[in-house]
Amino acid sequence: MNTTENIKKIIVKKPLKLDCGKTIDNYPLSYETYGNLNEKRDNAILVFHALSGDQFVTGTNPITNKEGWWSYAVGPNKAIDTNKFFVICANVIGGCMGSYGPSSIDPTTNKVFGTNFPVITINDMVKAQYNLLDFFNIDKLFSVTGGSMGGMLALQFVANYPDKTKTAVPIASTASHSAQNIALNELGRQAIMADQNWSKGDYLNTTFSPDKGLAVARMAAHITYLSKKGLQEKFGRKLQERDDLKFGFDADFQIESYLRHQGSAFVDRFDANSYLYITRAMDYFDLIKQYNGNLSDAFKESKTKFFIISFTSDWLYPTSENKEIVIALNAAGADVLRINRK
Amino acid sequence: MNTTENIKKIIVKKPLKLDCGKTIDNYPLSYETYGNLNEKRDNAILVFHALSGDQFVTGTNPITNKEGWWSYAVGPNKAIDTNKFFVICANVIGGCMGSYGPSSIDPTTNKVFGTNFPVITINDMVKAQYNLLDFFNIDKLFSVTGGSMGGMLALQFVANYPDKTKTAVPIASTASHSAQNIALNELGRQAIMADQNWSKGDYLNTTFSPDKGLAVARMAAHITYLSKKGLQEKFGRKLQERDDLKFGFDADFQIESYLRHQGSAFVDRFDANSYLYITRAMDYFDLIKQYNGNLSDAFKESKTKFFIISFTSDWLYPTSENKEIVIALNAAGADVLRINRK
Repeated sequence: MNTTENIKKIIVKKPLKLDCGKTIDNYPLSYETYGNLNEKRDNAILVFHALSGDQFVTGTNPITNKEGWWSYAVGPNKAIDTNKFFVICANVIGGCMGSYGPSSIDPTTNKVFGTNFPVITINDMVKAQYNLLDFFNIDKLFSVTGGSMGGMLALQFVANYPDKTKTAVPIASTASHSAQNIALNELGRQAIMADQNWSKGDYLNTTFSPDKGLAVARMAAHITYLSKKGLQEKFGRKLQERDDLKFGFDADFQIESYLRHQGSAFVDRFDANSYLYITRAMDYFDLIKQYNGNLSDAFKESKTKFFIISFTSDWLYPTSENKEIVIALNAAGADVLRINRK
Repeated sequence: MNTTENIKKIIVKKPLKLDCGKTIDNYPLSYETYGNLNEKRDNAILVFHALSGDQFVTGTNPITNKEGWWSYAVGPNKAIDTNKFFVICANVIGGCMGSYGPSSIDPTTNKVFGTNFPVITINDMVKAQYNLLDFFNIDKLFSVTGGSMGGMLALQFVANYPDKTKTAVPIASTASHSAQNIALNELGRQAIMADQNWSKGDYLNTTFSPDKGLAVARMAAHITYLSKKGLQEKFGRKLQERDDLKFGFDADFQIESYLRHQGSAFVDRFDANSYLYITRAMDYFDLIKQYNGNLSDAFKESKTKFFIISFTSDWLYPTSENKEIVIALNAAGADVLRINRK
């Protein structure tokens, strides 16, 4: 991996009172842009990344030297056409790609924060990123979008700033993190914290890191990214470069080899404490509770046009939860389009 | 926990050639019985336990001092009525409740086997338990039954011994472990092996044990034991003994507290290496492949009456996989009854 020192970032001077009660200021927010802002400054799309994403949406990620996480959808003549639109994406606070997070230096101690970093929320992340509108002198975005956690951020953005985006496209998202999703995130956190090298979050001040625990967390996540049917069709019981079972604990099956690869590749690019903080923010997300049980109140002042996308094969953020958002938008009289894809 | 020294066991003298090619003999097989064998010796039911079970089906488990795992179904005047039937249950080989397994002493080294124990299969487990019919002088069982892995063992029993049981009741089972199930088992194994205290399986020769890894494996399993809907109904976003979020990494939500409890309770009664061996046996289970792609051949000589039970809310062993078994039984002309329960 290359260093994150030379990536683009702003230092946000304006204090941000976090939901936990603490205030942060003078904090870095790293970002990337694609395409050009037009003269009217009305063609900007703010893309929000998911749990394991970062600001490098498309092209080559200069830190990992791999393809950006949404390369197939964002670029010249692609679905989000960078010949027409100015795409902005920021690394969420709590992340590990240059924005303020648990691997940042705590100015009060001059040591890495670790678990002394404040617990942040989806709302905090959105408020931090709102500063990019000022930075680019944008009065109103053309759109906000993102999948999974990115969709939650998009929903929170519209709730917070009802007249600051023309459209919103939350994808495979939810208005309230379910018990099963909390359970799966907790599993990942426990795997990390079970790793002796985690050292109660202080590993960046040691020579070890909780790679094995983080890899297990990533494996758990990857099992959820495909449906039972998808896993069966892609892997089934196919063996990995062998003719028969080996009667041992190596990876006999392709699915085992795939998961081990996903786990070990992830630790090269992601910080274990960031995994704890970002999953916590997702678990805390409950837009329904924020509006005292009435989700439509979150959108009642909004003139934003919505396009809600869900996948019927998605069991983390099922279509039923996306339909709840549509129902709330309809109740608020919002302009909404919904398409389900398998 | 009490010692397993005084529990009932037979020492199987007859050599067993395992599927891996190795042969074991003079090995312990621990068991428990409930009710009485009648004069005709035709009222015996062999119950097979699931991954985390043991031979103590009902009443108080003398080792853990907890209720047996199937107490609500097995006992006087219960579904499996011990006033009428003689119930036998053995700890599977590879297990940790007295039967031959990775925590047994390797006679060639006089040290604990650990991962030097041979990798065993569902077929090996069934062959080992068949010795109990000789021990009790039973020519034909009244039934074989069990859920999840126990159902696989019941299916394998009938395939191996087509005229040795009058009936078979495999519950929430499958004829072939799916990619998703292999993935979830692999996640558990990787969590155990990621624990430094696992010591490459040699922990019983050390003063440590991989409790944290085993707890994470158990947490992963428990997430799968309830459906998304079941988790939402039982836990939702309810908080654990607190009025509001605490903005930390303690268990804020009841689901987190529940999973942590399940994890920590499990390590008191289960051996980490047994978890590796038994999940491996489940993953290797593929009765369809054993019969060269034609599952009905597994049952073609059988006069056994089948009762296949599945749960439509079960996503580990879905109704569709149980239906495949019924289709194969129908194709073999077997006598089969099937009821789906939510």
